[in-house]
Amino acid sequence: MTASPETPEGNGGSCVLLLSGGLDSTTMLAHARARGWKVNALTLRYGQKHAFEIEAARRAAGRFGCERHVVLDLPLGEVARSALTSASIDVPRGSPAPGIPPTYVPARNLVFLSVAACWAESLGLRDIFIAASSVDYSGYPDCREAFIRAFENAALLGTRAGAEGRGFRVHAPFMRMGKKDIIRLGLSLGVDYAQTSTCYSPADDGSPCGACDACRLRQKGFSEAGEHDPALRAGKGGS
Amino acid sequence: MTASPETPEGNGGSCVLLLSGGLDSTTMLAHARARGWKVNALTLRYGQKHAFEIEAARRAAGRFGCERHVVLDLPLGEVARSALTSASIDVPRGSPAPGIPPTYVPARNLVFLSVAACWAESLGLRDIFIAASSVDYSGYPDCREAFIRAFENAALLGTRAGAEGRGFRVHAPFMRMGKKDIIRLGLSLGVDYAQTSTCYSPADDGSPCGACDACRLRQKGFSEAGEHDPALRAGKGGS
Repeated sequence: MTASPETPEGNGGSCVLLLSGGLDSTTMLAHARARGWKVNALTLRYGQKHAFEIEAARRAAGRFGCERHVVLDLPLGEVARSALTSASIDVPRGSPAPGIPPTYVPARNLVFLSVAACWAESLGLRDIFIAASSVDYSGYPDCREAFIRAFENAALLGTRAGAEGRGFRVHAPFMRMGKKDIIRLGLSLGVDYAQTSTCYSPADDGSPCGACDACRLRQKGFSEAGEHDPALRAGKGGS
Repeated sequence: MTASPETPEGNGGSCVLLLSGGLDSTTMLAHARARGWKVNALTLRYGQKHAFEIEAARRAAGRFGCERHVVLDLPLGEVARSALTSASIDVPRGSPAPGIPPTYVPARNLVFLSVAACWAESLGLRDIFIAASSVDYSGYPDCREAFIRAFENAALLGTRAGAEGRGFRVHAPFMRMGKKDIIRLGLSLGVDYAQTSTCYSPADDGSPCGACDACRLRQKGFSEAGEHDPALRAGKGGS
């Protein structure tokens, strides 16, 4: 298991990093900081039912010393039809059905990366980090490498940075890593997974449901890593 | 002068249309309706100083019978550095300097099209309209045909619609039309240009400044069309 060799170059090694407060993006933040990146963390409050994770994002941004942390309100739930944003669609529990699940949020990473590109360009930066992974994921099309590269091309052609020959580099260091390896990396970097939020449908106090797709992938990852999830040790349920 | 032959096909001829309330997008709305499209209009309140145009968008959506009109708050001004969103950067007056002007909003059309794709996918639609033009424009890179096609590809690869073989068609019927021809088209379709907002830096009552780049392009368009701008006849200044 190795993460992609994402070393700082250009712009003093500063980047914009999409930080949801979940397991993957928190580990990526620790990873980027360990590699010397200065991080401008961007969290989108997009109408998700699991807005509890925004507090987890704030804790992670403080813990790992971000240069800036912006929490931006983007009420995508007003137009997006998804189990994560629509009161009328339940988050599924139990084994997922084949195909793209109802927790898919239409064009979410396209929107998130676009806002990240807006901020990066405003800061004069070209590097953007996203914790997309095509392994142990939920079948979301916007987590695939081909999408990331197509986005880079659109951002190149649709920005001043691109017109002036700079463009953007979108780093997805976990693209080929499964949950097990991400968790092992995070533990080696001092990530406290008791402080990360994963569940799509948590209780009011943030306790994970233990049954949604995100909880199941997390449990599988800890199990395969031979580790116990400290969120469970902390008595937050979820098993 | 002819607009592109945008005829309805698929999905009952329904589309998502980005409607700012300005001259171009209001004319495009009239054009799409005249061609039989059912329109879901999307207006973004993104922190622009010229938020007065949002009222113009509401009037246009009512006047031309949209199926739905959503005004979405997307406070891009919190991360975007631009004369249109930053209090510390003045909107230029007078002849523009060469290059991309300070009114360029980083990645704006990338963000707007992404949100439009989110809504279109949620509605089960594939057609998106944007009033981008590479003629008589302000030098914005995100108004170019190449960007539009690159965006389509990113949206194809980053959505369920794409994964299932549908994807999106982004229509930019004014891509090769100058302001003169857009205005002539709009007048032939009954657009009341007294009701459209163009100015980047209007007075509190919506009166155009007459000196910003947007006002100057509008004046040039009316002049070349041999028409008088009714916003001026209405005593709103701006000449």
